[in-house]
Amino acid sequence: MIHLKAIGKIMGALLFLIGVLMLPAASISWIYREDSSPIMISAAISLFIGMALFFSFSKQDEFVRKREGYLIVALSWVVMTGFGMIPFILSKEITSFADALFETVSGFTTTGATILTDIESMPKGLLFWRSMTHWIGGLGIIVLTVAIFPLLGIGGIELFVAESPGPTSDKVHPRISETAKRLWYIYVGLTVLCALLYWAGGMTLFDAVNHSFATMATGGFSTKNSSLAFYDSAFIEYVAVFFMFLAGANFTLIYFGVVGKFKRIISNDEFKAYAIGLLILSLVIAIPIYLQSDYGLELSFRKSLFQVVSVVTTTGFITDDYTQYGTGVTFIFFMLLFLGGCAGSTSGGIKFIRHTVFLKNSWLEFKRIVHPRAIVPLIINGERVTGRIINNIMNFLLIYLLTFVAGSLVISMLGYDLATSLGAVATCLDNAGPAIGKVGPVDNFAFFSSEAKVILSFIMLLGRLELFTVLILFTPFFWRAN
Amino acid sequence: MIHLKAIGKIMGALLFLIGVLMLPAASISWIYREDSSPIMISAAISLFIGMALFFSFSKQDEFVRKREGYLIVALSWVVMTGFGMIPFILSKEITSFADALFETVSGFTTTGATILTDIESMPKGLLFWRSMTHWIGGLGIIVLTVAIFPLLGIGGIELFVAESPGPTSDKVHPRISETAKRLWYIYVGLTVLCALLYWAGGMTLFDAVNHSFATMATGGFSTKNSSLAFYDSAFIEYVAVFFMFLAGANFTLIYFGVVGKFKRIISNDEFKAYAIGLLILSLVIAIPIYLQSDYGLELSFRKSLFQVVSVVTTTGFITDDYTQYGTGVTFIFFMLLFLGGCAGSTSGGIKFIRHTVFLKNSWLEFKRIVHPRAIVPLIINGERVTGRIINNIMNFLLIYLLTFVAGSLVISMLGYDLATSLGAVATCLDNAGPAIGKVGPVDNFAFFSSEAKVILSFIMLLGRLELFTVLILFTPFFWRAN
Repeated sequence: MIHLKAIGKIMGALLFLIGVLMLPAASISWIYREDSSPIMISAAISLFIGMALFFSFSKQDEFVRKREGYLIVALSWVVMTGFGMIPFILSKEITSFADALFETVSGFTTTGATILTDIESMPKGLLFWRSMTHWIGGLGIIVLTVAIFPLLGIGGIELFVAESPGPTSDKVHPRISETAKRLWYIYVGLTVLCALLYWAGGMTLFDAVNHSFATMATGGFSTKNSSLAFYDSAFIEYVAVFFMFLAGANFTLIYFGVVGKFKRIISNDEFKAYAIGLLILSLVIAIPIYLQSDYGLELSFRKSLFQVVSVVTTTGFITDDYTQYGTGVTFIFFMLLFLGGCAGSTSGGIKFIRHTVFLKNSWLEFKRIVHPRAIVPLIINGERVTGRIINNIMNFLLIYLLTFVAGSLVISMLGYDLATSLGAVATCLDNAGPAIGKVGPVDNFAFFSSEAKVILSFIMLLGRLELFTVLILFTPFFWRAN
Repeated sequence: MIHLKAIGKIMGALLFLIGVLMLPAASISWIYREDSSPIMISAAISLFIGMALFFSFSKQDEFVRKREGYLIVALSWVVMTGFGMIPFILSKEITSFADALFETVSGFTTTGATILTDIESMPKGLLFWRSMTHWIGGLGIIVLTVAIFPLLGIGGIELFVAESPGPTSDKVHPRISETAKRLWYIYVGLTVLCALLYWAGGMTLFDAVNHSFATMATGGFSTKNSSLAFYDSAFIEYVAVFFMFLAGANFTLIYFGVVGKFKRIISNDEFKAYAIGLLILSLVIAIPIYLQSDYGLELSFRKSLFQVVSVVTTTGFITDDYTQYGTGVTFIFFMLLFLGGCAGSTSGGIKFIRHTVFLKNSWLEFKRIVHPRAIVPLIINGERVTGRIINNIMNFLLIYLLTFVAGSLVISMLGYDLATSLGAVATCLDNAGPAIGKVGPVDNFAFFSSEAKVILSFIMLLGRLELFTVLILFTPFFWRAN
């Protein structure tokens, strides 16, 4: 039996929180003398229904188990989306259901793909709420990564989220809340710092805060039609690169950095792969950019670095159209949509740890073929990785690719060309934003049909919740279990 | 230490065999009053060098071990290609090295992709040799599957090749040669039967034999520019479908069929997936063909069935251009390049058994998440599959996809568009033939640059030898081992 009461109470609390978090956006509306009623009404609805749900269910001391965990995770995003889209609809700034759904899911999943064709014409209050959905989604995924995914054992990376509480869940409550508190401080602290630096770099305070939300959540929504290219500022671009890099790193490692435990950082195999990978990719891609543009050395490197970090961390800010440098470069950026950042970050996608485990293990597999009787263990972060974890990770990779192919097939059957179908699904599943085909870095998702937008919204959610959390709800095992 | 003497002796024997097998093609040249000297000289070179190699090395009683096995497998295809391309070059019918290499590799790997733009203008002796390369390659892969791959433990499917000799290799010699003899009878018998039926269906005897070689090897080289569409005959098309289906099935199961053990066939999980999969795909794809053409019911189904069976079995004959039915259908055919036929057949690609194991196991994985303490075994063909095999198969799938992506990236960097790059690499790795983009079903590979042709040749070889046999030669473990 599934304990619906516990779930109802938690959804109520979440909804109340969403209502509270709408109030800053309403204030922005008021400050800029816009019509603040759409957001105020939305906030009131969320607060009211949230409280009603919360108080309808008596306090549950009973333990929330694994199965409730899956439902809570999936329902959280559904509830956030369902109520988060109300301001867009009430304001009539986004008129169709599919558009509002897509934009809101894109926000909460920190994807950053948009159906807006003229962002700058939107009221500031709504733009602020749009950026808030990123920030809330980023916070949510940090909480999930720390508190819930390790318990659920999603995709085999539970051991690599540093300081993960381990499988015996009844002992971990104090540790979870302590860890969550730390990560919350880091998330807020970095957001403030990032905003201040953007402001210092010449953005208005409003734009600085909005962009820092989108940066720390690895979201990618901008308040400008041309994204960060609008500012044409080396300072702002390097600030963005630095904070995107941090947002795509394991937040527990950032905590270690703050308290001076640098050894924990440089001995972390995922972080090494992430940092070195980004550097090599940026250097390699700078070459064709340098050869095919009149940018000069620094600018070619900066354009490459910015685009690479933005796509790999699944942020999706853009300062240059990478599709102009030929099929090879475009293909590389398409492939970058299958990397993802680090586990325990706000980034989406497959994550470096899974690639590291798979590639290292595959390499050792050759050794095992040559020496079938030798024991050839896979060592990550100084510890032996079990066959079960390797198995889980390979399974995740394959299900990820299967989801990508199935999604692309469905989109292509709706009549879109190959590159557009592959690109749209890859970037939604990765929670990145820009892609290839008709959804390249300077395009948007407005032209898709309503059906396609709903399907792509579902794919964003699948990607954000690491597939299994959602997919398991569609299996008989989940509902049949007692 | 690698026993080069044993390898040299085996290569000598193989080369002698190639020389002998060129003689029928030379006879065809002579019968049709063409210049038979290019093939005769090639045969003489092969026979001479083959004998020289064979007799240079004294008889080796020593056992050929696993490591020599890898080298023998890879070198066999290199030697066959190196000498098999000589007739094309000596005749000056194919002038460039890259073209001759591509065509010969495509033949021996039973891919069937061609660089010829006017097939019908080629001398009949050379066309016959071209078809022979298919037939020899198909025979070779059957021998490998039965005798060598199970010993090498390639890609985790050693247990699913029925009657596989198992891991203790010193006891299996009599069983291997007995099994190989049976499969050789079946291969020859089906080739003769197929040729007779093609002949009865209206082909010339020459065309019937050539096409039956290409059919039983799941190759796809035709003697007609428009492939089997040339005949426009329902009888020939159904005959082709029937024999392509058999050629893509496990030959040991066909043996069971011949001796009346039908129970072994219908209880085989891979065969069931293969047969039912082909039927469902043919029915589904018939719908858009029916709706978008004036073919009528039977013809729509037949076109669908033929194209599906041809692509899935990695044969590559064509009677209809599937790219004319929109992106959705084209996308499905692109995906079919990732299926492959059955293990123990002449088909290439991933093979149904690997998909079956992966998909069944992934499904059970959800059950394992819900019931973490329960033991949920994967059962295939009535037997439990070990974690080690599942691991091997998932690793194979991922390395296959990685090879596909890396290959596509390289081809795209040479300046080809996305669909063409993805399509060419997918079809070469799968040993199929037709693809998407500029290498659709009615196109050929002539337009590729020499570099691209050499790379695609390597990819065909990788696919044919199940990746690991070739890739392992590029690891330090292989050369360092003692």
